[in-house]
Amino acid sequence: MTQHIATDVAIVGAGPVGLFAVFELGMLKLSSVLIDALPEVGGQCTALYPEKPIYDIPAHPAIEAGALITQLEEQIQPFAAPRLLGRQVNGLSGKAGAFTLTTDRGDVIHAKAVLVAAGAGAFGPNRPPLDGLEAYEASGAVQYYVRRREDLRGKRVVIAGGGDSAVDWALALKDIASVSIVHRRARFRAAPESAAQLDEAASSGAIEMVIPYQLHRLAGADGVLSAVEVATLEGEVKSIPADVLLPFFGLSMDLGPIAAWGLQSEKHHVTVDPATCRTSLPGVFAIGDVATYPGKLKLILQGFSEAAMAAHAIFPVVHPDQALHFEYSTSKGVPG
Amino acid sequence: MTQHIATDVAIVGAGPVGLFAVFELGMLKLSSVLIDALPEVGGQCTALYPEKPIYDIPAHPAIEAGALITQLEEQIQPFAAPRLLGRQVNGLSGKAGAFTLTTDRGDVIHAKAVLVAAGAGAFGPNRPPLDGLEAYEASGAVQYYVRRREDLRGKRVVIAGGGDSAVDWALALKDIASVSIVHRRARFRAAPESAAQLDEAASSGAIEMVIPYQLHRLAGADGVLSAVEVATLEGEVKSIPADVLLPFFGLSMDLGPIAAWGLQSEKHHVTVDPATCRTSLPGVFAIGDVATYPGKLKLILQGFSEAAMAAHAIFPVVHPDQALHFEYSTSKGVPG
Repeated sequence: MTQHIATDVAIVGAGPVGLFAVFELGMLKLSSVLIDALPEVGGQCTALYPEKPIYDIPAHPAIEAGALITQLEEQIQPFAAPRLLGRQVNGLSGKAGAFTLTTDRGDVIHAKAVLVAAGAGAFGPNRPPLDGLEAYEASGAVQYYVRRREDLRGKRVVIAGGGDSAVDWALALKDIASVSIVHRRARFRAAPESAAQLDEAASSGAIEMVIPYQLHRLAGADGVLSAVEVATLEGEVKSIPADVLLPFFGLSMDLGPIAAWGLQSEKHHVTVDPATCRTSLPGVFAIGDVATYPGKLKLILQGFSEAAMAAHAIFPVVHPDQALHFEYSTSKGVPG
Repeated sequence: MTQHIATDVAIVGAGPVGLFAVFELGMLKLSSVLIDALPEVGGQCTALYPEKPIYDIPAHPAIEAGALITQLEEQIQPFAAPRLLGRQVNGLSGKAGAFTLTTDRGDVIHAKAVLVAAGAGAFGPNRPPLDGLEAYEASGAVQYYVRRREDLRGKRVVIAGGGDSAVDWALALKDIASVSIVHRRARFRAAPESAAQLDEAASSGAIEMVIPYQLHRLAGADGVLSAVEVATLEGEVKSIPADVLLPFFGLSMDLGPIAAWGLQSEKHHVTVDPATCRTSLPGVFAIGDVATYPGKLKLILQGFSEAAMAAHAIFPVVHPDQALHFEYSTSKGVPG
């Protein structure tokens, strides 16, 4: 159903950072609306890896991505921000204090400020160039996201890639599956502590390290995988018996219509002032993975912190007439 | 016992932000030592208000300050950072890559970098200028921190102050105690959402609002309080029957010996580069409430985020010869 909504702040992107922005805005008594192209809130946490354990959220020694979203949902529940899900924002017009956003479903949102928390944009996995890939994707023999870890129990799993996702999943699956990890280099680009754990697991035989090799061919028939063939740069081929291949070659980033708003950007990321998360367009702010500034780290934690800074910077845009110190009148209905 | 320790990073201050820094440094395989003047870790969270609920830690809809510290302790446990507690750092000598710190107990710490997470420094409450205050402090009739909320059940509690602590405690106690809140102004300087809740509680009679009044005299004898007398600026006095007075007039800030290190500062806060948390002294970094930069918010969340940025900026100080991309060799003990 097409919606017409008026709000203080339109939040574009309902991943963890967009969700927490509802809280930080709400604490300043600013109303907000969440808009996301996905049918559910949570962004990649919900859509790509709900069962992936995350270790670097402060005061959560370990929390699965899906549980993180559940906690954030509970935290913002008092603010009752409306959600426009399964809709992509396309148009932006107006100016600070009086923006109009439209979606591909014909919704119209009037907002005083815009907060872009679009993560990697409308994202999709980078797919390896292998013959017959589609049939294995369709059968689930090739998966780009682990939706349910338990489905892989007892399976022969080949993981391909050298970054955090590859290493974290190798570690997360080693106790329930037979895991090989294929990487085209001898070094992994993962957090040093995770890489050290991988090293230890490889030494003890808990994970088979296949480096430096790259994916060469899928062996099997009718969507049933029997082996993953890998090759060195010199063309030496070997075969790893496998039921499932998990390629982790990153996400392709596509900002979609936001790219047309004319925000100053750098390598597909929106440039912001780190003190305020202001973009080059007055009244439009950006936080989380989509935003960049000197020293930027792509951590969920960083996005949370940016949400707080942005909320404080947005306050005077919504209330240009109020002092910055958030003094709140208690004069009505007060005794004595 | 006097200790001699060599480490990558000496963390000065073991409050929530100092604790989380152990994690962020540990993820980059940097070792650290925690040093704090208090006998326990946790800073103000442990020493001042362990039972105070905190609402703005992401993915914790509500968490008591003491529980926050417990969670952080669990999160950093794998990194086994030594703790020098009940000791104040006094001396700093050497330079980036080779610092020596000494404490008032004669400990010597050799560290490649220093991370100051000293919060408000050696802190103490601002005490109201009332006759006979000491006797009521000694008996517990005047308390500056609520150590156990349950101890106030059924009591007549007068809260004085207009900031977040006063408002949050008024709200946290209203269901178990008879609460009056005294403030010398008509407006409260608290988060708008909290101030609105206070307003609502006052309207419904759950909290008695005594504004604009200030503390005038304590009535009682032998440390047993019977009433708190308050006065308007015009000198009009009224008496509020009371068992306990909780004055929340902020903490006095004292950086102690750190102030003598020559770090560039601004109004008792250490100036840092927001992209790296570097201070004016190479190799010395500052995070959390003690650090300031344009747009700085004094939130625990902000300090957590700064810990991550500082850890990444500290890495090249500890390992000047290693590339920034944290590639970790997996060449030892690798099959194939």
